[in-house]
Amino acid sequence: MSDQSWILSIAVLGGTGKEGKGLAYRWAKAGYRILIGSRVPEKAEAAAAELLKLIGEKAEIVGMSNLEAARQAEIVVLTVPYIAHRDTLEMVKVAVAGKIVVDVTVPLVPPKVTKVQMPPAGSAAQEAHEILGENVQVTSAFQNISHERLLRDEEVGCDVLVTGTSKEARAETLKLVAAAGLTGWDAGPIENSMVVEGMTSVLIGINKQYGSTNAGIRIAGVI
Amino acid sequence: MSDQSWILSIAVLGGTGKEGKGLAYRWAKAGYRILIGSRVPEKAEAAAAELLKLIGEKAEIVGMSNLEAARQAEIVVLTVPYIAHRDTLEMVKVAVAGKIVVDVTVPLVPPKVTKVQMPPAGSAAQEAHEILGENVQVTSAFQNISHERLLRDEEVGCDVLVTGTSKEARAETLKLVAAAGLTGWDAGPIENSMVVEGMTSVLIGINKQYGSTNAGIRIAGVI
Repeated sequence: MSDQSWILSIAVLGGTGKEGKGLAYRWAKAGYRILIGSRVPEKAEAAAAELLKLIGEKAEIVGMSNLEAARQAEIVVLTVPYIAHRDTLEMVKVAVAGKIVVDVTVPLVPPKVTKVQMPPAGSAAQEAHEILGENVQVTSAFQNISHERLLRDEEVGCDVLVTGTSKEARAETLKLVAAAGLTGWDAGPIENSMVVEGMTSVLIGINKQYGSTNAGIRIAGVI
Repeated sequence: MSDQSWILSIAVLGGTGKEGKGLAYRWAKAGYRILIGSRVPEKAEAAAAELLKLIGEKAEIVGMSNLEAARQAEIVVLTVPYIAHRDTLEMVKVAVAGKIVVDVTVPLVPPKVTKVQMPPAGSAAQEAHEILGENVQVTSAFQNISHERLLRDEEVGCDVLVTGTSKEARAETLKLVAAAGLTGWDAGPIENSMVVEGMTSVLIGINKQYGSTNAGIRIAGVI
């Protein structure tokens, strides 16, 4: 990782799920201090211990409540299931003022997870921005990647499109993408998040139809 | 082209524009009969003559009004600018009953063409379906490709995601993708078109930021 200028600690809210654990694993290996958050602090502590054991070298990973993790961190990553999206954001709102919140949420609506169904705000990330207000920068990223592959040190095979409320916040998020060993692209304003979130449904559908398990997208044609 | 089972003639409405001409060129070379449509039949005739000269061998390309092209064709492809989308569809509605309409339209809203801004129906393709009604199958495809490259016989460097109101209509559209020399994917129901249409804004933004002219997407991870 080339530039850790000011982001040293990352909260991964919902970090006990496979999505959060995969990202936490990569960032801890890259030298960031990781604060795993969960509704149940004991679960967060167990996930932190598991990741520390997996990395097997010096790494800084601690578990705590979502609110405490959001308070202590310099950047906050949200990896909860969509059903917990609004509640989690409202709960940590006071703790994330002035920070960047990276929303990884995909608003899948079971059972039709292969059909794009965005919430009234336009996308999960726009909904997050509505809840958190103007003094929080919201970006969205990592929706389309196989988090299991992150945890197994495998090639992920999918680029990461980053949208967000400011170019600066997207640039900071792109540093996290690179730190996780992935190729990222600035995909524009937060209104574009519907494309990236919705792509998850398209890729799930492609996996079902073409018998694959790991369809992803790559940006081509940029030298 | 391996399978021309029942689609023999393709109308390309708005086929005097660069998008339509590129597709018409590829399909004419692949052996389809092409009906170029335009609001001004003389312009359609001129475009047909131009394409015939470019191909320089036996090919079936004729120019006529949009309505007449829609009437005569077995499958109808819409390549008009978004500003003419609704009017063109209302005008040809009677002629496309029972047929497949392939919508290539991207609802860009100048000047902010790098920001995704979908119409109230959810996407241009869903709007087309609303206008045409239930007895027309609507698919969407070809929004993200460089049509100039089609016309220059160059590698396009971008996969084509096909959404649509039925699996059968998507399968027929995927045949047209293959006939144009492109790689296509069944991207699911018409509601998913917002992802593919919106991707155009993301790619325009990537071109602007990364100094490229031809950013595209590829589906990866499917063997």
